[in-house]
Amino acid sequence: MTTHETYDVVILGSGPAGLQAGIHAARKNVRTLMLGRMDNSSLYWAHIENYCCQFKVSGEEVLNTGREQVEAFGGEFRDEDVLSIDPEGSLFSIRLESGDTVLSKTVILATGSSRNKLGVPGEKELLGKGVSYCVDCDAGFYRGQIVAVAGSRSAAAGGAVALTRFASEVHLYCDKLDVADGLRRQLDETGVVLHEGVQITEIRGETGVDAVALDDTTTRAVSGVFIELGAKGVLELTATLGVTLDESMKYIDTDKKQRTNIPGIFAAGDICGPPLQMAKAVGEGCVAGIEAANYAKKLTHGS
Amino acid sequence: MTTHETYDVVILGSGPAGLQAGIHAARKNVRTLMLGRMDNSSLYWAHIENYCCQFKVSGEEVLNTGREQVEAFGGEFRDEDVLSIDPEGSLFSIRLESGDTVLSKTVILATGSSRNKLGVPGEKELLGKGVSYCVDCDAGFYRGQIVAVAGSRSAAAGGAVALTRFASEVHLYCDKLDVADGLRRQLDETGVVLHEGVQITEIRGETGVDAVALDDTTTRAVSGVFIELGAKGVLELTATLGVTLDESMKYIDTDKKQRTNIPGIFAAGDICGPPLQMAKAVGEGCVAGIEAANYAKKLTHGS
Ligand SMILES: Cc1cc2nc3c(=O)[nH]c(=O)nc-3n(C[C@H](O)[C@H](O)[C@H](O)COP(=O)(O)OP(=O)(O)OC[C@H]3O[C@@H](n4cnc5c(N)ncnc54)[C@H](O)[C@@H]3O)c2cc1C
Ligand SMILES: Cc1cc2nc3c(=O)[nH]c(=O)nc-3n(C[C@H](O)[C@H](O)[C@H](O)COP(=O)(O)OP(=O)(O)OC[C@H]3O[C@@H](n4cnc5c(N)ncnc54)[C@H](O)[C@@H]3O)c2cc1C
Repeated sequence: MTTHETYDVVILGSGPAGLQAGIHAARKNVRTLMLGRMDNSSLYWAHIENYCCQFKVSGEEVLNTGREQVEAFGGEFRDEDVLSIDPEGSLFSIRLESGDTVLSKTVILATGSSRNKLGVPGEKELLGKGVSYCVDCDAGFYRGQIVAVAGSRSAAAGGAVALTRFASEVHLYCDKLDVADGLRRQLDETGVVLHEGVQITEIRGETGVDAVALDDTTTRAVSGVFIELGAKGVLELTATLGVTLDESMKYIDTDKKQRTNIPGIFAAGDICGPPLQMAKAVGEGCVAGIEAANYAKKLTHGS
Repeated sequence: MTTHETYDVVILGSGPAGLQAGIHAARKNVRTLMLGRMDNSSLYWAHIENYCCQFKVSGEEVLNTGREQVEAFGGEFRDEDVLSIDPEGSLFSIRLESGDTVLSKTVILATGSSRNKLGVPGEKELLGKGVSYCVDCDAGFYRGQIVAVAGSRSAAAGGAVALTRFASEVHLYCDKLDVADGLRRQLDETGVVLHEGVQITEIRGETGVDAVALDDTTTRAVSGVFIELGAKGVLELTATLGVTLDESMKYIDTDKKQRTNIPGIFAAGDICGPPLQMAKAVGEGCVAGIEAANYAKKLTHGS
């Protein structure tokens, strides 16, 4: 925890929803920070034809222009994922991959909707019976037990660290670890067993998870498998904040001003549910950016 | 009334909200018709910097690309304004400037928010005391009286025609009349007195409108002045349909699926209220286009 800067608006996600929110917030002259990785946006590899009014563009091109716009209006970028958000007085304390913490008057959740699957036998069959996509939701069930985590990014590494407070052994399986140095150090300090270059090929068990089979032809007895292939997603970040989800339990519930049930926390884009489209994402981003900036100004100057 | 084609989705407005709705509706392979005039969009003369992810573009350029997209996906265009919408069985009957009528299973209202002012002395002071921006709302108050109408487009000409059913004399003042032939014929047939090239310079009266002063230095005694500088706006079109407005009474009330209170009628963009921004307009247009297309399909195939 080295940095402790205070922002008016911190935006989790640099996809179209986050970028549009950043443009509108920064334009209102409030101190704005963008987080996340552009190449983790669903749009990054896309070829887009149905977004008004650009006919045939690549996601990468679109996102780079958006970033240029946010920067031109004074918004800052840090290409890091967020590990947790906690209330701190009237502010929010946002812990980053690098170990730094920033404070903000408002937070816009624009982290998209990807809930990546591992795609191995047993994953679907044992979902909720030892297979989980949410460390913060389910870690407590594994007190004193051995668990496996799959994934190479911050969600997996951060999840593995968090699990060491409950589980007796935490094994992290990944292709090549791709996290900031701060988080990598924490893996060591907390005793996570890192298996770089080893992948889970099957999850075994009848009524619950018994073991994982690995691509080095060995197996390991575990009672839980956490699949965390992206960055920290909606479930994890909202679990600790108390942000309400919609009836599907997959998306964040907002009103037409993109406010969640927690004052100061807004959401926009795929994370708010279908249609999962760029046009909808920017529309919600625009509203969230304006509303968050106004909220931050009120907090500063009184209403 | 020559044409009687039936569409799945008819979109009033070819600004960003209408265009994005058209893209998403046409993509769903439903028969889609776009109405309105592109150069009546608020965006047409704008220079845009804050729309993700195009940095510096002109409104005209943006709108032309949007049109190209809609057409590429099979959407049709008619550059005409709508004069009225009426229920006809389970469909809506949409009367156009040209005199043609089209039928549609659904309607998306995306007509923007401009309520143009005349900007002459007396206009503000006598608002609601003889000055009106809505023929369909207020025509009935002028039974047997003399009224003036200001404007050169379909809203003014159509309004003047409608007023002849109530007023004893209707005088239409405009720079240069710019309406389809069908509507121009109706002016003649209904006895509207057309004063082309003559403008209202002042609205006079104390407790109510008494007269208008004109730029040919004459005055005319009238008891009402209707200012209709754009195309038919939200107030007029919704008055007959029974679409509910929001508390401000200026904008259409929709839910998050852009549905109004009338099944089959959707709305998107500036007409739904602030922020009056292109990003918000396309976001709502995307949702309205998808929802209207789905609604039309259900009507066709049963649910
Ligand atoms: C292959 C493909 C093709 C597509 N084609 C189209 C198309 O043609 N047209 C269209 O309209 N839509 C298309 N989409 C959908 C479109 O990509 C999404 O609707 C859009 O990207 C949603 O934007 P978003 O900003 O909500 O989320 P995303 O664009 O997914 O961005 C999410 C952001 O959040 C960040 N993030 C995630 N977790 C964290 C964390 N813990 N901390 C900080 N940051 C975090 C990520 O790094 C990323 O920057 C396509 C999607 C895919 C997958
Ligand atoms: C000078 C100016 C600069 C602006 N700059 C920006 C900017 O930089 N960034 C930004 O995000 N926003 C900007 N805006 C706002 C932006 O233009 C609007 O938010 C946006 O155009 C709204 O889109 P819309 O589709 O809802 O309505 P509009 O774009 O206004 O389109 C309305 C459409 O409805 C049609 N119509 C109206 N009546 C009828 C009828 N009776 N029948 C059929 N069709 C009808 C019109 O012909 C038109 O095609 C600016 C606005 C102005 C005036």
